[in-house]
Amino acid sequence: MDFSSKLLENAVHEMSQLPGIGKRTALRLVLHLLKQPSGQTTRLSSALEGLRNSVKFCTQCHNISDVELCEICTNPKRDGSVVCVVEDIRDVMAIENTGQFNGLYHVLGGKISPMEGVGPQELTIASLVNKTKEGKIKELIFALSSTMEGDTTNFYIYKQLEGVEIKTSTIARGISIGDELEYADEVTLGRSILNRIPFENSLKTN
Amino acid sequence: MDFSSKLLENAVHEMSQLPGIGKRTALRLVLHLLKQPSGQTTRLSSALEGLRNSVKFCTQCHNISDVELCEICTNPKRDGSVVCVVEDIRDVMAIENTGQFNGLYHVLGGKISPMEGVGPQELTIASLVNKTKEGKIKELIFALSSTMEGDTTNFYIYKQLEGVEIKTSTIARGISIGDELEYADEVTLGRSILNRIPFENSLKTN
Ligand SMILES: [Zn+2]
Ligand SMILES: [Zn+2]
Repeated sequence: MDFSSKLLENAVHEMSQLPGIGKRTALRLVLHLLKQPSGQTTRLSSALEGLRNSVKFCTQCHNISDVELCEICTNPKRDGSVVCVVEDIRDVMAIENTGQFNGLYHVLGGKISPMEGVGPQELTIASLVNKTKEGKIKELIFALSSTMEGDTTNFYIYKQLEGVEIKTSTIARGISIGDELEYADEVTLGRSILNRIPFENSLKTN
Repeated sequence: MDFSSKLLENAVHEMSQLPGIGKRTALRLVLHLLKQPSGQTTRLSSALEGLRNSVKFCTQCHNISDVELCEICTNPKRDGSVVCVVEDIRDVMAIENTGQFNGLYHVLGGKISPMEGVGPQELTIASLVNKTKEGKIKELIFALSSTMEGDTTNFYIYKQLEGVEIKTSTIARGISIGDELEYADEVTLGRSILNRIPFENSLKTN
């Protein structure tokens, strides 16, 4: 692509660094911003910078939060003895939307993927294992996506829990294998949580 | 969508103001930025702000340019007697890519669309008509999209040129090279037949 302006080229280049945004789409988005009042661009860039520079993660569940402990972790009506282990914040939002879960979460920040250079150290697994050793958590529900990486991560955590007295389960496979949690419909996802099975059982079926 | 953070909610909201970017996609893009070094967000927001606040349009052709007269308008090898009238900068880029046009451009900034509240005054039509009165331009090529709005805009400009001695043409509409006839829409196919060219001419251009 030959641009008539370096400023334009630069804006399109940076926009096309976002996943799934090719050069053509980036150009369309940038030209759209040019047609809008400049306030829209200012609001977008301040919002992104504001989030990136001031983002906090809940020290207990690692969900994105504006305060040290998130609203879910500090809600006295929630059951701290059940913790649902998820990959990222979108899964928390998806499960919250079902209205079927009243426990707490633990956000891993991804799943173990040697191909993408993500090892256990890149995730919040140590923090999870430490929490389980405090004895307050009676059950961990693994709600990772049912891919090879998800299964590997579940199993890795399961092994780390040896000697800890805790029940482990995985959400029921009402969701088709390979599907991302966040795209599952609320009813299916809600049912999956209600029908969770002991983690050991999921090992047998695989 | 319930967000655990106002900063996150705000970033997703602003991102989803872009055309074709829904809330889910916006969330995915924003979470991606959070996983990247903060420099990427800084580069993106500065590039957008830099363009929006410093964007210039060529005073002659209205293409986006970093200087008062764009590279195309100031190129002495280009033929200033032929001007191709287009809707926006993407059309300039598309035609430049063909390598088939050596004249200049005039970027209208859109097309007349009463439905979307775009009248002739919102476009650079007056500037175009004034240019034609200077007598240097021998031919205008209308290269707007062949929609009702495009046709309306062509015709509006054509009427404004009454009394000006100038040749006007529109780009040929037809079946794309390599396209199967059976998949072409009827209007395009019909126009292709009406605007057929002597077979000898097709031999010369291929
Ligand atoms: Zn929390
Ligand atoms: Zn120009």
